[in-house]
Amino acid sequence: MSHITLPEGVPGIRGPMMFRPETAKPLNELVDVLLRGPHTLSPGERELIATYVSAKNDCNYCETIHGAIAAHHLNGNEELVRRVKLDFEEAGISAKLKALLAIAGKVQLGGKSVTPEDIDCARNLGATDLEIHDTVLIAAVFCMCNRYVDGLATWAPDDPEFYRQRAAIVATHGYSASTLTPAATAQRGS
Amino acid sequence: MSHITLPEGVPGIRGPMMFRPETAKPLNELVDVLLRGPHTLSPGERELIATYVSAKNDCNYCETIHGAIAAHHLNGNEELVRRVKLDFEEAGISAKLKALLAIAGKVQLGGKSVTPEDIDCARNLGATDLEIHDTVLIAAVFCMCNRYVDGLATWAPDDPEFYRQRAAIVATHGYSASTLTPAATAQRGS
Repeated sequence: MSHITLPEGVPGIRGPMMFRPETAKPLNELVDVLLRGPHTLSPGERELIATYVSAKNDCNYCETIHGAIAAHHLNGNEELVRRVKLDFEEAGISAKLKALLAIAGKVQLGGKSVTPEDIDCARNLGATDLEIHDTVLIAAVFCMCNRYVDGLATWAPDDPEFYRQRAAIVATHGYSASTLTPAATAQRGS
Repeated sequence: MSHITLPEGVPGIRGPMMFRPETAKPLNELVDVLLRGPHTLSPGERELIATYVSAKNDCNYCETIHGAIAAHHLNGNEELVRRVKLDFEEAGISAKLKALLAIAGKVQLGGKSVTPEDIDCARNLGATDLEIHDTVLIAAVFCMCNRYVDGLATWAPDDPEFYRQRAAIVATHGYSASTLTPAATAQRGS
């Protein structure tokens, strides 16, 4: 049971976002810019960073939904997502993305864990300042989202199919749309 | 030295915010709603939650600037801010705020650390669902900001007077204004 009264049957972060649309708006805008905006890292690569950090924070809802969105962008390759969460060094991804995931993992531990050597490693593999900046911010944002979701003890469905279907919707329509579904609109009474 | 090239002489989070105005906009909107929007918790109380979490994350810039903003809202009572960071149970604040700070401290450790007993304690002292929600989200947001600031190794001034002066500006104009200073505007070339 969630720690506060949230709309029934609305999973994960979407419950508290419907409860507090004033904060949901900038939160969704932030995630849309970071994960879906124009970028040299693909949406799939950025979703892998979000998934990896959420898995390190043991946030079941976030690691499952962002893992499903990552797989959706990566031609349905759920096995690749699983390998990135388990041991990204052995996954079939670029060396640059591995270096960025290493930085994201350090950010999850705490900002000061990131060393100049971590940055040099990523830069030597071709990472730009913007890619490094966004990796740090994506990791930090998911340290926030994971705490928001679990700190309120929100509900997460068990059925993997739920996440696959939801992933297809998010991949098409984006994050900001998720709080503007007819259900959400009705709930807010607007 | 910061991990990526940031505008010179711009302290803390404001450096990466000038570097990436697309993410700065929703970040500042989020913090403005949470810390300055209409609320049953005063701006001083909400800044104390932000300061306490930032201190627990050992983020020098954030704990100092938000401590200064809290003190600004609390009639310049820097000693109260110091006591909240050191041992809030002994500080001259309400029992309800102490219970909310306990929840914020749990969120800093990880979302799953928050227990139904923590929530019941706050509720029995008069905390509403909205106050509990916003406490969890403020704590989560500063777990993000602290990692953003330190994960990029941004610069933090040493002079306490810098933070007092800056606090007065933020208390008057808000967070969104901080990335729209003449310097920031010139930097962006707009």
